[in-house]
Amino acid sequence: QIDSARLWDTIHETAKFGATPKGGVRRLTLGPEDKQVRDWFRARCEAAGLEVHVDALGSMFGLRKGRDMSKAPIGLGSHLDTQPTGGKYDGVLGTLAALEVVRTLNDAGIETETPICICNWTNEEGSRFAPAMMASAAYVGDFTTDDILSRKDAEGVTVAQALDSIGYRGATPVGTQKFSGFVELHIEQGPILEAENKTIGVVDSGQGVLWYDGKITGFESHAGSTPMPLRRDALATLSEIVLAMEAIARKHGPKAVGTVGEAVIANPSRNVIPGEIAFTVDCRSADAAIMDVLDKDLRAAIAEIASRRKVEVQFDLIWRKPPTHFDPKLVDAVENAAKMLGLSHRRITSGAGHDACNLNTVMPAAMVFVPCKDGISHNELEDATQADCAAGANVLMHTVLALAGV
Amino acid sequence: QIDSARLWDTIHETAKFGATPKGGVRRLTLGPEDKQVRDWFRARCEAAGLEVHVDALGSMFGLRKGRDMSKAPIGLGSHLDTQPTGGKYDGVLGTLAALEVVRTLNDAGIETETPICICNWTNEEGSRFAPAMMASAAYVGDFTTDDILSRKDAEGVTVAQALDSIGYRGATPVGTQKFSGFVELHIEQGPILEAENKTIGVVDSGQGVLWYDGKITGFESHAGSTPMPLRRDALATLSEIVLAMEAIARKHGPKAVGTVGEAVIANPSRNVIPGEIAFTVDCRSADAAIMDVLDKDLRAAIAEIASRRKVEVQFDLIWRKPPTHFDPKLVDAVENAAKMLGLSHRRITSGAGHDACNLNTVMPAAMVFVPCKDGISHNELEDATQADCAAGANVLMHTVLALAGV
Ligand SMILES: NC(=O)NCCC(=O)O
Ligand SMILES: NC(=O)NCCC(=O)O
Repeated sequence: QIDSARLWDTIHETAKFGATPKGGVRRLTLGPEDKQVRDWFRARCEAAGLEVHVDALGSMFGLRKGRDMSKAPIGLGSHLDTQPTGGKYDGVLGTLAALEVVRTLNDAGIETETPICICNWTNEEGSRFAPAMMASAAYVGDFTTDDILSRKDAEGVTVAQALDSIGYRGATPVGTQKFSGFVELHIEQGPILEAENKTIGVVDSGQGVLWYDGKITGFESHAGSTPMPLRRDALATLSEIVLAMEAIARKHGPKAVGTVGEAVIANPSRNVIPGEIAFTVDCRSADAAIMDVLDKDLRAAIAEIASRRKVEVQFDLIWRKPPTHFDPKLVDAVENAAKMLGLSHRRITSGAGHDACNLNTVMPAAMVFVPCKDGISHNELEDATQADCAAGANVLMHTVLALAGV
Repeated sequence: QIDSARLWDTIHETAKFGATPKGGVRRLTLGPEDKQVRDWFRARCEAAGLEVHVDALGSMFGLRKGRDMSKAPIGLGSHLDTQPTGGKYDGVLGTLAALEVVRTLNDAGIETETPICICNWTNEEGSRFAPAMMASAAYVGDFTTDDILSRKDAEGVTVAQALDSIGYRGATPVGTQKFSGFVELHIEQGPILEAENKTIGVVDSGQGVLWYDGKITGFESHAGSTPMPLRRDALATLSEIVLAMEAIARKHGPKAVGTVGEAVIANPSRNVIPGEIAFTVDCRSADAAIMDVLDKDLRAAIAEIASRRKVEVQFDLIWRKPPTHFDPKLVDAVENAAKMLGLSHRRITSGAGHDACNLNTVMPAAMVFVPCKDGISHNELEDATQADCAAGANVLMHTVLALAGV
């Protein structure tokens, strides 16, 4: 059993790096608060006897030796970056539970056959730089390191500049640290476990993701003197797109979601009809065929709206992450650990994307979920109980022990 | 007859203060480019023998003596500030045509019975600070000077600070400079004169304006894991409000317009459902009864949308400018000048607001319109011909001469 109080204290210790007045955390990837939590994490890893190295995209790896050093370690961990209005648990729980597993094994003097390696992946959130799960995507070869290094945030700062500015462009080439499997603990970020009163989600699959960059070009004109029928209003166009996207996602019931998270009017003024708007779309489904339908329907709706409103809409798919089907053997290992510990559990699909979803494409991977209050995440009010966090960490530890061998 | 080439050159001389790459002007009120054009204007006024003074809100007055100095002068002029993506003529034509009238009278050695006074009113556009026509509204007593001085731009800078930063907080208390009437020349900013091939619009009325500040409070949550029916999406809410407002305005055919010009998502992120949006609404009609219907319908639509979507919408009327009915005698004077000059003309309602609309509430006022290309304004592509600008300036001059007496 892990030390529940120590895990809880550790979570709340990191919550001060980027703490917001509303009780949440704003710790955008590769910003100054991210540097603080990274420095803290490195020190705690080293204090726990781990050998820490950082790769060229800033992902941090803390290695605990095993008896058989010829074997690639079992990886466990998550991420320490947050959304602009993020919570204390998203990513943090999985990363600090990994540290807690190491501390527990150390205290109990337990050696594993296979080494283990705890991870903090760079930019899981995808809020400052797109796409999300950026570093693990490069790790599995979906993008080259150079491509990712050149991605820019809204201010035009590249990933390379951001890494250098906090001193976290590491020496290890991306992909060098091999794993024989990966297990990630995370809060569910949805309402199912809480509603069904289950402590553990045995994650067997994950939704696929479509990310788009959009730009509407209408025509700026005077709000008072331009008759309604002559307008080419970029915001009215966006409004139709948002509602069309909502209807398109809803057609699939619980099997799809769609969100416009960003919309920026160029040169806004109260008495000017908006002439240009940049926006983003996030659509998801666990079913690849539905993802294709979403894409087709969305493009058709946008084309119809644009032509009727006589505006131009650019709409580019910038990221497509197919649905995830986690490794059946690892999923069973998670389920067995939950059973062995006597914890209520159910199989579950992840609504969110996770680094484990990327890693699963090149190694066996699986995930453990624990409930979060009212299913709320990506919100400063995100909450989880100490007991659930500890239960998740115990399932993580026993899954890892089963895989690494004692 | 005014000097058409001199007027045209003067307009294009000022267009360099805040010139944009697309051929427009960005000269936000009380910013550094506004200071440049003000300094230029003051020098040109003084060179034309005018006595210049500046009031406590930065409005500039250049006085040309008349034979009877006991009479309050006839005012003429407009404004030199622009929209963020403004054109070269909006406001500028009327202000520089006023200067051209003075230059022409000087060259011809014409003295008037009543003095005349050319004006550059502060913040006509209302883009940086609300409301529009701010200084003339204070002049007529719609707002106190102190109230206006405390208004803030999006960065939190007050009108007082902005005035001080460019050295244009003048000594004359607002309202001290009296007028016995006011005439403003302006581009139409709408499509009617051009469509009907008329050179002069004899403006007899102006639309009323309703300005609102809105704020939607929904709930931030995860774009991937939050089921569609559980969302409280601030942007989807705004989208419905925008389209409802459009439909509400359209119900009145050409008699009403409605615009959402600004919308800002708080802490936007691609994979976060927007939780908070600030927005503005601009609704207009020349019919006060229709303005009341617009207000009622808008509030009802917003209440319905907010309750159905379980979000909170704050919606505050921050400015109500009633429709304008210009002084019949001055309107006749404008029409007579157009007739006398043999220019094609028609009576017209102003879609935009103007300082003359405010001034009309305390003195006889009227306006002269000239066509602008495709009715386009509040756009960098705004355009007008030299011949039309000169024709308008001639109508302005002869109207003023008729009022001031030679
Ligand atoms: N787990 C999580 O919130 N990931 C962020 C990436 C996404 O799913 O949008
Ligand atoms: N004339 C003009 O564009 N005025 C700006 C104020 C407004 O009507 O919105």
